[in-house]
Amino acid sequence: MKNLLLTFLIIFSIKGTAQSADAKEDSLFLKKIYQTALLDGKSYAWLDHLSNQIGARLSGSMNAQRAVTWAEKELKEVGLDKVWLQSVMVPKWTRGITEFAYIETAPGITTNAPICALGGSVPTPIGGIKASVVEVKGLEDLRKLGTSNIEGKIVFYNRPMQADLINTFEAYGGCVDQRYAGAEEAAKFGAIGVIVRSMNLRKDDFPHAGSMSYGNLTDMEKIPAAAISTNGADLLSSMLTLNPKIKFLMNMNCRTWKDVESHNVIGEIKGSEFPDEYMVIGGHLDSWDLGDGSHDDGAGVVQSMEVLRLFKEIGYKPKRSIRVVLFMNEENGLRGGKKYAEIAKNKAENHVFALESDAGGFTPRGFSFDCSNTSFSKVQQWKPLFEPYLIHYFVQGGSGADIGPLKKDGIVLAGLRPDSQRYFDYHHAENDTFDAVSKRELELGAATMTSLVYLFDKYGIK
Amino acid sequence: MKNLLLTFLIIFSIKGTAQSADAKEDSLFLKKIYQTALLDGKSYAWLDHLSNQIGARLSGSMNAQRAVTWAEKELKEVGLDKVWLQSVMVPKWTRGITEFAYIETAPGITTNAPICALGGSVPTPIGGIKASVVEVKGLEDLRKLGTSNIEGKIVFYNRPMQADLINTFEAYGGCVDQRYAGAEEAAKFGAIGVIVRSMNLRKDDFPHAGSMSYGNLTDMEKIPAAAISTNGADLLSSMLTLNPKIKFLMNMNCRTWKDVESHNVIGEIKGSEFPDEYMVIGGHLDSWDLGDGSHDDGAGVVQSMEVLRLFKEIGYKPKRSIRVVLFMNEENGLRGGKKYAEIAKNKAENHVFALESDAGGFTPRGFSFDCSNTSFSKVQQWKPLFEPYLIHYFVQGGSGADIGPLKKDGIVLAGLRPDSQRYFDYHHAENDTFDAVSKRELELGAATMTSLVYLFDKYGIK
Repeated sequence: MKNLLLTFLIIFSIKGTAQSADAKEDSLFLKKIYQTALLDGKSYAWLDHLSNQIGARLSGSMNAQRAVTWAEKELKEVGLDKVWLQSVMVPKWTRGITEFAYIETAPGITTNAPICALGGSVPTPIGGIKASVVEVKGLEDLRKLGTSNIEGKIVFYNRPMQADLINTFEAYGGCVDQRYAGAEEAAKFGAIGVIVRSMNLRKDDFPHAGSMSYGNLTDMEKIPAAAISTNGADLLSSMLTLNPKIKFLMNMNCRTWKDVESHNVIGEIKGSEFPDEYMVIGGHLDSWDLGDGSHDDGAGVVQSMEVLRLFKEIGYKPKRSIRVVLFMNEENGLRGGKKYAEIAKNKAENHVFALESDAGGFTPRGFSFDCSNTSFSKVQQWKPLFEPYLIHYFVQGGSGADIGPLKKDGIVLAGLRPDSQRYFDYHHAENDTFDAVSKRELELGAATMTSLVYLFDKYGIK
Repeated sequence: MKNLLLTFLIIFSIKGTAQSADAKEDSLFLKKIYQTALLDGKSYAWLDHLSNQIGARLSGSMNAQRAVTWAEKELKEVGLDKVWLQSVMVPKWTRGITEFAYIETAPGITTNAPICALGGSVPTPIGGIKASVVEVKGLEDLRKLGTSNIEGKIVFYNRPMQADLINTFEAYGGCVDQRYAGAEEAAKFGAIGVIVRSMNLRKDDFPHAGSMSYGNLTDMEKIPAAAISTNGADLLSSMLTLNPKIKFLMNMNCRTWKDVESHNVIGEIKGSEFPDEYMVIGGHLDSWDLGDGSHDDGAGVVQSMEVLRLFKEIGYKPKRSIRVVLFMNEENGLRGGKKYAEIAKNKAENHVFALESDAGGFTPRGFSFDCSNTSFSKVQQWKPLFEPYLIHYFVQGGSGADIGPLKKDGIVLAGLRPDSQRYFDYHHAENDTFDAVSKRELELGAATMTSLVYLFDKYGIK
């Protein structure tokens, strides 16, 4: 009994020491990662180029291809083991000449309203459409109103994001059906167009773009769809209260073309021990065509590139093969994410981990994990390592749209979770520009991602 | 034994139920606080007025008095039990006509440099001072250089804030001695002026003001002191490397006047059970004279006002007397904080708790506590209540400058700790303006403060 206890104590003590040596090594390594990212980082200079020298890069545009060429060149300069492009066919939609809209209170008496066509919308006829407006708070109101109240009119979806939800993505999730399915549903009741309150918690004058779908509607049935700024929505709503007979004119020149070829950009460091186990770090290279996509998702792109660069800079040789994947077409098709997963499956590549940054370049708070309870328990043991960096948020939930198609048993999918309070001030709008990103916050995000990848690489997934 | 166990189980179970009922009540009450702050808050509208209709409010200025009058009126409208002004004599320093400076590389060849006089500095002679520059990385370099290398020159303090410190206040603390004591120390070695790199982690063109001291120097010994923007500091440093003989001209017109009367603004809700126990919630009403002091400390002022307004709005009647105190003169004298504590002591008022918000209007992360271990343990039990609001940071440390003079045994002093990453982008500079504050982040801070005050009021300090 005594000997058994002794043996137990010795084993425990050795294990304890080993764990503690590991914890110390990890703690020092994370410090090195954060120091390098903050003192000698490259993410901000990369974002400067991507945002200010390239700019908005909607799938299928020339700018999207400029971004592909640039990212490939930059990744090659990092000195990875391999950099390549992965061909993918993507949708091509163009906004055309700037949209305009006005509220007409009496013939000739008009007030301009800031709108933008939603991505994928059909255009209005030349000269626009002008009609009465029926305001609703969501798709469910359409049935109550019925065709008699909707036919020939413009439906105005005006349910705002819920300001008392702390996680603004939750508030977004509670509204975005209006944008995505609003035109399809309203068309079924005979509406001739829809305008949707921008998905923005702030009151301002920026209309916010975003994707929409016509479902199974035929071309003849499709009606134009636009977003209106939050201030514009409040104005229109209060004018409708005063006079329900006011008319709304919207003019849009957008167009959908044939699919075109584009690319995912991929870079790889070959694993030293388990080269056939793949870890993917990514963001999406495409953006909406307003602003320059600095938060969505320029930040995620340069942070993902920075993860691999930091490993090279620090001299860390990963056990597993680590890939940065800059996905094309997250915004209006997810073709890049699907293509990457399809090819990985065809090649029987064993993907064990994927991390996406696609929630803005704000101060990182933690991660959301789509994984087994076993893997999640592992993460929770690492919490103390992240504490000095104020990273505290580790939850089970979603990860990222582009890496979603990689989902299978045993894989860990993760999403970086930055502070979300200001994200929808900029999301898909003209003000999502480089100046809205803080250098430090961007760098902290890159360091936080690198730290997580390091730990999963070192200790494995299960 | 059996009976004892049964008794124990019953007691435990009653206690458990009571705790759980309390926890449920608290959870619902915090939800109500956050909802009211986010859906029906007043802090942002107050800040709009304070920043945009009043503006910068340096102690002793007419604007500082306008702020006092406004705050008194607004607090009266909240319907508190009592609102009053507390007289306090404050320093009066004026910047005068805008400063200017240039680097002279050869006679007539000059490059402008963005500077601002440090608060409390003496002016230059009319026409300015022009001299060679000696760059140092801190006060300790002066002794190494000695009088022979410093006499007749301008000392340029250029130690930057350390970018790899996660808490930016720590980085500030590691540099601010250059600003505060730089002139006093350089004067002892015969310098004729000092310029100090702005306390800013970002590279930009804003010089950042802030207080400085001449210690025991006589008027004759005092030398003018200015801050230079981070970009300006980098430019000057690189030019000095190319040519150590370049000259620097600085011209300042600032002036110190006799002390003038000003006021702390105080509002009170009388406690229902322990009216003689006082809880203070505060920020400082004065600001530097550049920008409009929206983050420093307009945010803290309106958040503190909002704590009491939220209690009124929700209908919570505190057990203890709760005061909002808007302190005058935190920036260059702390006279308001000292006066409030002095009067509290003279009146033998039993202050049990004080909370200050003076770290910017950014997303709240938690609090720092200067209190007994017993009180701190209490706080840690409340952590789960704050989790839904992503408030995770509870540490023992400093609290706030204005409430510091209240320190005594048994009191809990606390400081709100918002995300600090961008604070020094704006601190004491021209760009600390209303547009740099997010409505949601400001409101979340007010709700977080209100929640802590509620819990301490309900459960007491010990």
